[in-house]
Parts: sequence; structure tokens; C-alpha cells
Amino acid sequence: MSLLHKTNLQLLLDLSLNKAVFDGEFGLEKENVRVDRHGRLALTPHPSAFGEKLNNPYIQTDFSESQVEMITPVFTSITETHQFMESIHDIVTLELEEQQELLWPSSNPPMLPQEQDIPIAQMNNAVADEYRHELANKYGRKRQLLSGIHYNFSFTDTFLNQLYKLNQQTDDGQRFELSSSSESFATFKDFKDAVYFKVARNLLKWRWILIYLTGASPIFDKSYMKHCVEKGMSIDHKSYFFPNMSSLRNSTCGYRNQSNFQVSYQSVQQYVQDLQQLIDERELMNAMEFYSPVRMKTADGSDPLQALLNDGVAYLELRFIDLNPLEKIGISEETMHFIHLFLIYMLLKQDEPFGVREQRLADLNHDRMNSEGLDGLLHTTSQEQITLREAALVFMDEITTMVELLAPDKERYISIIANERQKMAQPELVIAELVKDGVHRSDYISYHLAKAEKYAQQSIATGYRFQGYEDLELSTQLLLKAAVKRGIRFELLDRKDNFVRLMKDEQVEYVKQATKTSLDTYSTVLMMENKIVTKIVLAEHGIRVPIGEDYTSLATTKEAYNKYREQQIVIKPKLTNFGLGITILNYNYSEAELNRAFEIAFEHDDTVLLEPFMTGKEYRFLVMGDEVVGILHRVPANVVGDGKLTITQLVQEKNKDPLRGQGYVTPLEQIKLGEAEVTVLASQQKSIDYIPNAGEIIYLRENSNISTGGDSIDYTDDIPDSYKQIAIRAAHAVDATFCGVDMMIDDIGVVANDHNYSIIEINFNPAIHIHCYPYQGKNRKANEKILDLLFDEK
Amino acid sequence: MSLLHKTNLQLLLDLSLNKAVFDGEFGLEKENVRVDRHGRLALTPHPSAFGEKLNNPYIQTDFSESQVEMITPVFTSITETHQFMESIHDIVTLELEEQQELLWPSSNPPMLPQEQDIPIAQMNNAVADEYRHELANKYGRKRQLLSGIHYNFSFTDTFLNQLYKLNQQTDDGQRFELSSSSESFATFKDFKDAVYFKVARNLLKWRWILIYLTGASPIFDKSYMKHCVEKGMSIDHKSYFFPNMSSLRNSTCGYRNQSNFQVSYQSVQQYVQDLQQLIDERELMNAMEFYSPVRMKTADGSDPLQALLNDGVAYLELRFIDLNPLEKIGISEETMHFIHLFLIYMLLKQDEPFGVREQRLADLNHDRMNSEGLDGLLHTTSQEQITLREAALVFMDEITTMVELLAPDKERYISIIANERQKMAQPELVIAELVKDGVHRSDYISYHLAKAEKYAQQSIATGYRFQGYEDLELSTQLLLKAAVKRGIRFELLDRKDNFVRLMKDEQVEYVKQATKTSLDTYSTVLMMENKIVTKIVLAEHGIRVPIGEDYTSLATTKEAYNKYREQQIVIKPKLTNFGLGITILNYNYSEAELNRAFEIAFEHDDTVLLEPFMTGKEYRFLVMGDEVVGILHRVPANVVGDGKLTITQLVQEKNKDPLRGQGYVTPLEQIKLGEAEVTVLASQQKSIDYIPNAGEIIYLRENSNISTGGDSIDYTDDIPDSYKQIAIRAAHAVDATFCGVDMMIDDIGVVANDHNYSIIEINFNPAIHIHCYPYQGKNRKANEKILDLLFDEK
Repeated sequence: MSLLHKTNLQLLLDLSLNKAVFDGEFGLEKENVRVDRHGRLALTPHPSAFGEKLNNPYIQTDFSESQVEMITPVFTSITETHQFMESIHDIVTLELEEQQELLWPSSNPPMLPQEQDIPIAQMNNAVADEYRHELANKYGRKRQLLSGIHYNFSFTDTFLNQLYKLNQQTDDGQRFELSSSSESFATFKDFKDAVYFKVARNLLKWRWILIYLTGASPIFDKSYMKHCVEKGMSIDHKSYFFPNMSSLRNSTCGYRNQSNFQVSYQSVQQYVQDLQQLIDERELMNAMEFYSPVRMKTADGSDPLQALLNDGVAYLELRFIDLNPLEKIGISEETMHFIHLFLIYMLLKQDEPFGVREQRLADLNHDRMNSEGLDGLLHTTSQEQITLREAALVFMDEITTMVELLAPDKERYISIIANERQKMAQPELVIAELVKDGVHRSDYISYHLAKAEKYAQQSIATGYRFQGYEDLELSTQLLLKAAVKRGIRFELLDRKDNFVRLMKDEQVEYVKQATKTSLDTYSTVLMMENKIVTKIVLAEHGIRVPIGEDYTSLATTKEAYNKYREQQIVIKPKLTNFGLGITILNYNYSEAELNRAFEIAFEHDDTVLLEPFMTGKEYRFLVMGDEVVGILHRVPANVVGDGKLTITQLVQEKNKDPLRGQGYVTPLEQIKLGEAEVTVLASQQKSIDYIPNAGEIIYLRENSNISTGGDSIDYTDDIPDSYKQIAIRAAHAVDATFCGVDMMIDDIGVVANDHNYSIIEINFNPAIHIHCYPYQGKNRKANEKILDLLFDEK
Repeated sequence: MSLLHKTNLQLLLDLSLNKAVFDGEFGLEKENVRVDRHGRLALTPHPSAFGEKLNNPYIQTDFSESQVEMITPVFTSITETHQFMESIHDIVTLELEEQQELLWPSSNPPMLPQEQDIPIAQMNNAVADEYRHELANKYGRKRQLLSGIHYNFSFTDTFLNQLYKLNQQTDDGQRFELSSSSESFATFKDFKDAVYFKVARNLLKWRWILIYLTGASPIFDKSYMKHCVEKGMSIDHKSYFFPNMSSLRNSTCGYRNQSNFQVSYQSVQQYVQDLQQLIDERELMNAMEFYSPVRMKTADGSDPLQALLNDGVAYLELRFIDLNPLEKIGISEETMHFIHLFLIYMLLKQDEPFGVREQRLADLNHDRMNSEGLDGLLHTTSQEQITLREAALVFMDEITTMVELLAPDKERYISIIANERQKMAQPELVIAELVKDGVHRSDYISYHLAKAEKYAQQSIATGYRFQGYEDLELSTQLLLKAAVKRGIRFELLDRKDNFVRLMKDEQVEYVKQATKTSLDTYSTVLMMENKIVTKIVLAEHGIRVPIGEDYTSLATTKEAYNKYREQQIVIKPKLTNFGLGITILNYNYSEAELNRAFEIAFEHDDTVLLEPFMTGKEYRFLVMGDEVVGILHRVPANVVGDGKLTITQLVQEKNKDPLRGQGYVTPLEQIKLGEAEVTVLASQQKSIDYIPNAGEIIYLRENSNISTGGDSIDYTDDIPDSYKQIAIRAAHAVDATFCGVDMMIDDIGVVANDHNYSIIEINFNPAIHIHCYPYQGKNRKANEKILDLLFDEK
């Protein structure tokens, strides 16, 4: 039963195309049903935060209003695809969290109400709404809540083109043969179609193997369709199952056409012709209603028949993959890799006949596997009597051989295959059996609800980051997550620069570092960058600023000393955004100290500002448009005692917060107990072993930077409106849309007057993540606000 | 006859206020009549380039449409004031050059047509037009063409406040006394008014001294008013004069009220009351018609009577200063300083009575000086018989004493005073005598026309710079000159940063480095700054760019070498605007050479681009809005032989071009003959003593930078439109208003197609001066275009 086409394989090796066959383009789509905190189907509308259902390329609804569909863009690697799906999953989870809902992690539905109480998706489109109602009537709303994963795949056109050239060669044995008939192709399109139809045929024939390995819906709730519950078995009269069934969704109780329509996969022409006939005969309303396990898709993602004829097949959509409740997003990277290998094998193996008879046998094998497991006999046209298990094992050997011959990263693949092979020998290891086993320890609803809650907690804990984009600044990651949520497409133009392009309908926006956008003019940014200009303009607008002088030479130190010796002053370089080169001189400083402060500042710029030192506490006002979006105050790294733990232990406890990390990849930084902290403690006559009293606050640093473990405290709701109005006026004075206004406030218990505050700086690139994930306080959703303003929403 | 108030002086010294008395605020206004190339009054309208007459704060018209009035802002130094006036003068001259007109350098008119053919200024305002016609009928149009200088002066309020406090002291002798009457003042305003009225009284009394020194209109053309010509003397029957007259303008043939109205200068109340009476009696149409030698002005520059009463005197306007034809702008800095000293003296000297009688005596002294010179006797209330010369010399001694006692920069002042004193002993040295002497060597018209032409050439030769703002970048200087020309007010917010504010009516624009404005968004600038993003976007717009790859590590050199070894390539840092770190590798480069090029580039950025080297010549397209404003090509430093001069001599000749300077303060840089140039010559087997053949071009450099003596050649009219359209499309692709598009073009004789050009960079801060003052080609007025776009003009 050797199925590999050895000559073809050797040819790929000879021509160094063996690696290119593993290249591909991938996409995932998946549905999850929304449920409440008790595992009941959510009857709420699709959250408006996800924008218009039909316009969001990432987050839509499927048949039911309660069924969220998540769609990744196309990626050239499985890792990226998987990570992006995880991010969408996180984004949806975080939004649902706000309405106390969860994503149901099983392909089988949660606790369902009566059929007629299940909401059908409202598409705000008469035709689409009617179509959905017809489908609901035909298949039943409960059935329609079955959810799954679509795995989209194509080889790269570069690779297929090389194959095509090999196929066109006629001179010697160096010819790549798609089938034994040695057919030749007039165009690349014809060849490419033939490739995907060959893969589709082989896939249909052997799909039972993949369903065995990926089936994850072996058990269902008593609220599912009555006739299925009645036929099923149950231990607890809550959760029902059929013996050996791994996938309800791929069973007769699953989502299938009412008949096993015979559609030819011999060529694109025959495929289209057969489908058209079914439509003409009113068996199907349209081509979309043909629920084949694999779909032939065109480049724009649709599958209308005419487009298939004209443009050919662009990729395959595998539709039979269940949501795996053991995985947060319903599928593991390993499973994705195995399916990829399975698809490559379908191209490289010998072509086999796949007429009406073979197609029916494939359907029978599918059903036999799903009712008898691997112990049943393989339906085959030959006389050979082998079990499904024996056939599957041969199959795994063949894939192993293929990988060993060709693959670029063999070890990982071999390990993945070995793991899947193990499940054939030991059915108790297969996903469906693990799920069934888990359910039997509690019940269907409780088991999956626990999973749903666990996964939601994971999403929330890492809500500040975007899977697969952790190399970007947190502010940019948050902006992109907000974009995905509302369906604004994005592209990374220069990852290192955090330079992205956002697209919605016809509008295109270029954004660098989250807040550098087209909404601020260049001159506005330059005004903010230049402290002298900022102060002139703010003062003209009646806003209190530290009015000082600028110096361009150390020679004037003496003059400055004579003039300012009786004041507290600040010496700082004219251009700095990072607090470098700044010295604060308290009362009674010496001329030498002033001189040194000037020297330090001159190391950073050749113009240095001398300003009166402004009293009060410093607050960062994040202004966006006409609004103060958030106000933060930072305090130095600290711990609060409980009367039991030492400082070391308290630091360890505080560092467990998932928002605290190392190396600026998290909203807060872990507190260190290094030389600097020990010195600060020593100045308080304390050591790291000191046990602070309950409620005693121990500061471990003098500076309040987040980068040295400082805390960010949200004061947005605590600062009187008068200060907010001043911050907004300051932003307007320089015509800024996005800026961070640093204000000193003497006492936030007193409303602003002409002498109890001052603005020391306006920043043109304010960090937004600190307002979204402060140490204390609410997420101020600054990322959402940027998009509101950029795309004129809300 | 000691007039200094010694106690007051000692008081200033004791309290270290002696320097502050020399502080002040200055402004100049002057008129010049426009003439054609023959010295005839220009009958053309006021140039539209100067914007609306009444809205341009710098350039207006006076009574006649042909009379340009130039007005400086207020400055705290005489040098700044003088320089600014010189700049306005330059700006007006350059604009008049375009219509073959000149500024007439004399207070007396040029060759005049008949009275009725002299155009009265059209103000587009019925009331203003009628007023001008009434004045024309009352005084005569020829008389109205007399032009002069208004010198505006105030002490600083800081200083006057200190004086006021000293005046308020009652305890001991430490009291500053304005007058001998020891009056006290209820408010600072009252004191300040008293100060300026005291100065005005003294000034009126002694004004004949200043008129003697500044009078510069001793002679006039035969086309002037008939009755004056008839009374005058002439040698050539072209130019007429009166014996000893230094200022026609300050004579009975000058611009005076028809009677010597008696208006009291004892207090603001009496002054206003007397003027109001003259108006009520229809002697004057309004207060403006009172042509006193000194005017009391309010803060807004007007002198309506009510405002004077309410707000008090803000500054004095000296109206009797003639245009000095020996000076390009009509007055020297030295004269301005002398007038300043004169004014200070008027404050510090003893107060003298100035009633009706003293006022009439002052008028008599004025007229006596203007008809008899200094030899006549001083009209005085005392019995003393002294000549005007003797009185003037005492006066000079007093001023010298004052300066020696108090002044911060004595030597300069002493030298200025000595110089003026000399003119009293030797009347032939006085300006009027020098002018008359000059005229007698030719004639009135020819003499002044020659001066006008000489000054125009001076203005043209330095047209690229803005007097007093030479520390700014040339691009900014040009922008500000264009602003002044059309009457857009400006302020320097940060000189070092070339950060200016432009204001017109209610519109305020902030501009840095001439082209960084509110018309470009921040994201547009960031796109241009990022070469990767620029190329992605341009390529998407169908524009040819060098598509390469970016590298972040030297480790990939080998891979790059294998991939690109057969191409000409460029290695450059991702972020650079100054051409630093760029290496071009020709065919057959080694891996070591590539490695070195990467190393060099990595010194400037941690991302390095590898691009195919694009063929052709490089052109800089300056795009503004929807327009290519200029196209430049730069060629390396070179000389063209004449068969006679050596290379050294040719370089010396070429360096005489006023556009060539040293240290980047001019549009072009002088060619040096240093080591680099000698090496380049040596590679051509030539020395600096080689005499090139006529027409032979000798290149002295390999690089074409302007900074090493390269030439900028304007190609704006030589490049086919197809390339201009590409440059505009490129600018639009990144949404840029102002940018420099660097394009390689294979052959400008061939229109653009898909493979004969490429854009290598778009610059967001293009220099504009190179397009205004190229080595070869027209001034493309890029500075004007910026203002057109910023203020939506034309």
C-alpha cells in the first residue's frame, strides 16, 4: 500500500524544491458561541464594540447572533496564524468580560433555550436576513450553533510555478507528474486548479484520519436537538454521547447537507457543473450551502461558481476541524502543523481514482470511524481486508517517510507525527476521549464552563499585549488590538519603528508609536518639542508655566547665580523628553553647584533652560482631542507591610502581578532589590529583612520612574475639572490632538487658581499603555480614543 | 549756560540707574518716492506684491500713490531698528527692480509732472480717499511728495518706573526732579506724561541743532513748486537752492501747517485742549493734520486726543529728520545714536520755561538756522548775545559731560559726538553741504539718480539675506523677507531653532526652518523620514523606487553578497538626511568591500538599507502643494577656462560672485584650492597653475555638494512635464505639502517612462534658498510660494 510518488519526491530533492513544498499560506476561521457565567447561550446582541458585523474583517457573527466568528488574515507561517487567532480570541474575551460573558470552548453548543428563542444573526440586510431564516428553518437553530474551525491553506505560487515548469518538461524523466495520466496543462491556472483538486480528492478520501485526530465533540448537553439526545447514551442524564463518536459535528447529528450530494472533484469544470445542477434543482439555495468537508475557494475568499471557472482555485478551506476544548483558542500549533503535513502529502502521493463509488466509500469510512473508532474495516474497492487503524498507521509511516526525505525542520515534524501516531495505538489519548473522560468527572456544561473561565482569565492577565507583536511597543500593541476589535485592518510598515498603516473602508492612516498621527501637524509637534516656544505660547494663553531663561554658554553662570540665588530652580537641556540632564537646585545652593548643573545639562543640548522650581505633585494629563482621557501620578517603587512578611517577601509578592515584567515589555516593571534600593532602605535605617508593620509604606527608590519599579496611580476621577480644563486649553494652545500635559498641582483638593498649578511640559508622544494598565485604577482605553479620533467614530 | 541737572545725574549714578537711562525702544518710519530709470516720478500703482496698503504693517503708501512708506517694528536697540529698515528698503528695492523702478534717496522730490498728474494714493476707502484729496488741495501735490524720516522713541517703562519711585520719595535729597517746581504726580501715568512733555518741550526748543546736523535737502529740482523755484538760486537752471538752507522740507517751501499754530506742551490736558480748539475752529481737519516737529503718540501708534487723555503718551515721534542721500536707507546708525543722546539729554537737563513766547523764539531759531546757518544770533529771552554756533557748541559739551558721567559704552558715544561737533566748526562737513557740493558737480536729478542706482545694486547683491537676521538659516531669512514684503507680521520665537511665528489678520502660523509648517501632518513627515515606508508607499502608487532590503546585523553580509554580487548597489543607513554613511559599490566589488560598507552604515543607524544603484543624473524637485516650484541639479566645483587665466586665477574670479561666501551664510560657497582640489587636479595631470583652454571645464571636486564649492543649476524649465507629474504624485502619495523629491533621470531629453527614472528619497525639510539663488537660472521664489500656501493667497 505504498502511496508516495517516489519519482516526484526525488525530483523535488534533486532540484532543491524540497523545502519550498513546506512553504504555504495559512488562515484560520473559527466560531465560538457566547455564553453567560452559567454556561447558558447568551441572548444579547453581538457587542457593538466589534463594529459593523459585515465590515469587520476579524470579528463577525455566523448563523446565530450569539456565535462569534473570528478570522485571521493570511500569514506565511503557522505560528503567526495561531498567534493572531489567539489575539483575536483575547480581544473578544476582554470585550465579553465587560458584559459577563464567555466564549464557549466546545464545538457542541452550551445550555440552549427552546429552538425559537435562539437568536438568528441580524445582518441589517433584508436578503441576508431572509437567507439566514431559511437556513434556520431547514437545518434547525440548535444544529446551527455547532461551531468549528476552518483551516485555509495554499501552497505558494512561487512553488507551484516551479512545479508547473517541471510538469511542462517533455524531454526526459525530469517531469513532475500530478497524476498517472500524464496530462499536460495549457496554462498555469489549469495546473494550479489540478493541484488543488488532486489535494481535495485525496483529502476527502482520507479525511477520516484527520477527524479521528481532531474530533473534539464526543459529548453534548441534554438541551441539544431532541432526536439526538433520545438516541444518545448518558450516565448523568445531563451529558449525552454515542459510543466511539469523536465528533458530533461530523456525525448525522452534526451540520451536514440533508443528502450526501455527489459532486465531482475531477476538475473545476465538472465540480462547477455538478454544483450548478444541484442549485438548479433547488437542492441547494446557492454554492455556499454545499457543506463539503473541503471547499475550493477563489482569491477573494468567496466561492461563487463563475469566479472559480474564471480565476481558478486560490486555496482550500478545510471545514471539518472541531474546536479543541483542551486548547485556549480551540486548536494547537501542533495540530495545525500536522494538518499541513497531511495536505502536503496529498499533493505528493500517488493519485487515486475518486469517482462516485470512491466518494461514497470515503463517506462510509468517515461515518465508520465516527461510530466504531479505528477498529472497523476500511471500505475499499480492493479486496484487501484491513482495519481503519492499520490503514491509518500505514498513512503515518508514509508521512514520516515524506518528512524524513524532504522537510527542512525534521525533528519537530517527526515528534508531532509520533505524537499523533501514538493516539492510533492508544485511542484513550485522542482529544475526544480526553474530553469525554473530563466530562464524566463532572458534566458537559460544568466541564466546558470551567475551561471557558480558565481561558478567559488567561486572556485578561495578558490583555496588555498582542500575541505575535510583542516586539512592538506596548502602546502600539494596544492600538492594534483596539483596531482589530472594531475591524480596522492594519499593516506593519516598519516593525522596528512601530510604524503601522490602519485601513477602514477607503480611509488610510499612517501611525507611528501609537500617537504620532495625521491629526497633529508638524508645526504643532515642533512647538511641543521646543520648550521655549511651548512656554511662550502657553503663557500667552494665560496658562501658568515656569518662566525662566535660556543659556547658551557656561560663561553666564555667575550672572545667573546672582539673579536666581534666592530661588529654588531647575536646570535642564532645552531638548529632552527622557528627563536626562535635569538638576533641581534647592535653596542655598552654591555657585559651584549651579555650574555643575549647567555642565550636566550642556552635555545634552547646547541650549540650557533655567526655570524656577515649581512646587506640588506632578500629574500626567493625557489629552486627546477635547478630552482628558486619563490622569496619572507616579510614585516610587514601594511595598506596603502586613506585619508578617519581610521587605524581600513583600517585593516578591508584589512582583507576582502579571502587569509587572522585566525589560519594558509589560505595563509595570518588577521591583528589584539591588544596590540602589538597599541604599535607599539604609537611609531609613532598614534592611531588606525588615518586617514592616501592617499598612506601613516602605519606599525603595527616590525616583518615581515606572522603569525602576514605580507605581502608576490613576487619578482621572479624582482631579477637579478645573485642572482638566487647563490641560485641554494647553493642548489647544499648541493645536495638539494627542499630547501628554505634565502639570504640577499643589493640592488636588483645591480647584485650580492662578498660582496653585503650573504646566512644566507638553509631550507630543505620550505613552498610552500606562493609562490603560495602571497599577491602581481603571483602564482608560486611550487606544480606543485614538481610533475614535482618527476614524471619526463615536 | 550749564543746563544739566547735576543732582539728578548724581542720583542716577548713586542708584546705578545710569545705564538704564540709555535703554530705550526705537522705531523708524520713512518715505521714499518711486522713480523710473530717468529720475521721473513713477506714475504706476503701488506694487500689488506689497499686499493691501492698509494691512501691511511694514510697507504702505503715504499721501501719494508713488510714495512708499516703510515702517519698522519696535526694537530695543538702534542697530536692530536700523538693520530692519535696511531690510525693508532692500525688499522694496528688489520688488521695484522687477518694474524698472528705483527708490528716490532725497527728501526733495524727483522730476515731477504737472501737479494734476501726480497720483494721489488710492486707499479703496471713500473717507480716506476724500481726506487725501482735501489735503492735496490744501497743501499741493508736489509739496506732499516731500519725504522724510520719523524717529520714534520711548524710554523703557522699567526705567521710568524707577524714576517715578525716585520722584515720589519725600524724605531726603534723594528725589528725582522733573522740573524745578517739584511737582508731584498722583499716578505713574501722570509722571510718564510729564516726562515726555518735558522732553518734547526741550526738543522743540533746541530742534534747530538737530535740523542743522540732519538736514539733507538743500537743493531741489526745477519741477518743484513754481514759487519756490522762482525764489531760489541756480547755477545750471536745473537745480535750485537757497543760501545756507540745509532742509527745504523744514523751510517755508516744506511741508508745514499754513500757520504756526500755538499749541501748549505744558501738559497733556493743555495740549489736547489747544488741539481740539484748532479742530473746532476748522483750522485743522483732525489731530493728524497738526504737523508739529514732534508728536505725542499713544500706545497703538495713533494720536487721537481722547486716547492721549486716557492712556497717556507712549512714545515721541520726531518728524523733522530728512532722508540723507549719502546713506542707503537715508539715515546712519550714528545719526540715530546722536538723536538718542539728544533725547536723553532733554530729559536730564534743567527744565526751561516754554510758553507762547519761548515757542515762537524756537520757531525763529529753526528758521534762522535754515536760512543763515550757525552764524546768526540765537533768539532768546535773555540779554545774552550768542550765535547759534556758540549755543550749539555749549550744547555738545553738555551732552559730552552727560555721556562721560553716565553712559555704558562711552567711547562710541564720545566719537559720535565729536564727529557731529566738528560739523559745527566746519559747516562744509554737514550733510546738506556735502549734498549740495555733489549736486553742483552734476545736477540734482543725475546726482540722486546715481545714488539710487548704486543703492539698488547693493540691495540686489545681498538680496538673499535679511539684515539683522543673518544668524538664521538662509531659507528662513528668505521666508521672512517674503513675509515682510506682503505684510505678514513675524516674531522669532527661537532664533537658534529658526522657529518663527507668522501672523496675518487673525491667522497665526508657526514655522520652523521655513518649510516645517502646519500644512504637513506629523505622519506625513514621519513617512518621508522613514525610507522603508516611503518606498513601500511610492511603489504602491506605481512610482519607480530602488527596491532593496533592510538589514539589522552585519551577520547577514554573506547572504547579501551572494544575492547582489552581480549588481551595482548602494548601502545606506535607514535614517539619514545628510548623505552620511552611504557607500556606492560598483560592479565586481568584494565581500570585504560590502562588509566595510555595512560597517560604515551601521555607524549611523541600526537598520541599514541595501538598494540597487540607480543610473542617471540626480535632480532635486522642490514640490509645494500641487506644483513643482523648482528643479536643481548640482555639479562639482569647477572653473571654465578662457585660454588666459590659470586655474588659481579662474577660481579667484569665480569667487567674486556675491552669492559665494564662506561658512554657509550665502547661497553658494567659495571654491577652495586645498588638498582635496589639488588631488583631483593631479588625477587629471594638472596643477593649479594650468591655464585651461577657452571653454575647457576643469572639475576641482568629485562630489557635487554646494558646501564644497559646487554649482547649483536651475533646470525648472528644461525638464519634461512628465517628470514633474511624477514628483507631484510622489508628494501626494505621502500627503506632503512641502518636500524635496530626489529623482534620478537617465536622459532629460526623453519623457518619463516606467524604467528611465527613479525616486531615491523624499525630503521633508527641503532648502529653499538654493532654488531662489542658484548659480545658474532664475529665482524660483519658493519663499513666496510657502506663504501663498500657508495663507491661502493667490
